[in-house]
Amino acid sequence: MIEEKPRISGEMTGEGGTAVPAALYLFPVPLSDSSKIGDVLPPANAELLRGIRHFLVENVRSARRFIKRVDPSIDVNLMTFTVLDEHTRPEEVESMLEPLQNGEPMGVISEAGCPAVADPGADAVAVAQRRGLKVVPLVGPSSILMALMGSGFNGQSFAFNGYLPIEAPKRAAKLREMENRIRRERQTQIFIETPYRNNKLIAELSRSLPGQLRLCVASDITGKGERIVTRPLSQWAKANYDYGKVPTIFLLFN
Amino acid sequence: MIEEKPRISGEMTGEGGTAVPAALYLFPVPLSDSSKIGDVLPPANAELLRGIRHFLVENVRSARRFIKRVDPSIDVNLMTFTVLDEHTRPEEVESMLEPLQNGEPMGVISEAGCPAVADPGADAVAVAQRRGLKVVPLVGPSSILMALMGSGFNGQSFAFNGYLPIEAPKRAAKLREMENRIRRERQTQIFIETPYRNNKLIAELSRSLPGQLRLCVASDITGKGERIVTRPLSQWAKANYDYGKVPTIFLLFN
Repeated sequence: MIEEKPRISGEMTGEGGTAVPAALYLFPVPLSDSSKIGDVLPPANAELLRGIRHFLVENVRSARRFIKRVDPSIDVNLMTFTVLDEHTRPEEVESMLEPLQNGEPMGVISEAGCPAVADPGADAVAVAQRRGLKVVPLVGPSSILMALMGSGFNGQSFAFNGYLPIEAPKRAAKLREMENRIRRERQTQIFIETPYRNNKLIAELSRSLPGQLRLCVASDITGKGERIVTRPLSQWAKANYDYGKVPTIFLLFN
Repeated sequence: MIEEKPRISGEMTGEGGTAVPAALYLFPVPLSDSSKIGDVLPPANAELLRGIRHFLVENVRSARRFIKRVDPSIDVNLMTFTVLDEHTRPEEVESMLEPLQNGEPMGVISEAGCPAVADPGADAVAVAQRRGLKVVPLVGPSSILMALMGSGFNGQSFAFNGYLPIEAPKRAAKLREMENRIRRERQTQIFIETPYRNNKLIAELSRSLPGQLRLCVASDITGKGERIVTRPLSQWAKANYDYGKVPTIFLLFN
């Protein structure tokens, strides 16, 4: 049987981390450079960061910057950073968890948002799970979840689809499938696009889907320019907008 | 065009809230009675709470308890609470946003987790969106998202299905559909069950789905008894477990 332990130790010293229980801690990272840490992360995350030495990171430079942003007094030179990104082969991940296997806590840090959700990290979690090692997800900003909250769409049933296919026939088929799932299953459909194609995508959706379907465009979530706007596609077709440079989440519903 | 404003005002007084910009703020609530506020909520949420007088709440008593837990010095008697739950009819929601329409900030508080995600609140957000009123989702714990992070499953494509149907033929059809979407779309399938049926559900899944499919059982997330365990169904079939009394999220993947 699995032993029950407190999730986050109540006795952290903040002085080197021997008090942080061994586990793979998943650290969410602010979505926007303009957001204050206290707006988007619970204080416990900083406390845990101070007690962990070994990190799997999507990008070393941005991980260091994140840690410095959370607490400038942390000496990042005492930490080890191993890159875990979309180029990492699954078999490489096995050995990355050695410190945890030896009883030391480890952290996973992606570039923005929640590790393992639309971001690398899931492979490391899967290896930890396979070996029976403890995994602890931490609270933080998720653009997908916050976009869903702000959309007004069905939160009882929803799907995140990642990027739409690029090839025209596959893309059209995907749009039809999403439309069907909205109608038949009342399932909110969530997807993303590379920012420079955001405006084109909105125009395309307005053209190719029924005008009464509602599109929510949630951009720069938690940032200074946060805008979460839900309108029928027929209104988007006539609207002025420019989402060309900001990370944006798209949601469709009836 | 939509005016760009800072998301959360930098000039909150904490003394009655005139400084909080008018918007519908969506306040996540801790998932567990045992979790410390500082483990699961950013400090900004407390700051905002202090500046808002009008709340739409799933349950008045638990909303008051939540606010007291965040800051015992807040006088909840100065606040108004309007119930917005699964019995609220959509047409009743319209008038509930009157304070916001008059330029006052409002908050939405559900019983646990994130408002409007597998919880009431989406109707109020939809009305606000229709009227062009600003909606601001706040950061906090989501059992669905944290379960996904901790599962090791695909976070590039996933669906939350709510409760499985109860009737046997519909339930079997839903399980087949989820299995298909895992195989064909590599889409992680997430669902919930009423706690007293959790154990029965695990047994049922082990019996009726291929043994190599992996099931993640994520229970008491952020609580003292948090356990997030991923195993093939063939192993769950032989395992000892008891999830009979705790809120649990289930995830299936290949």
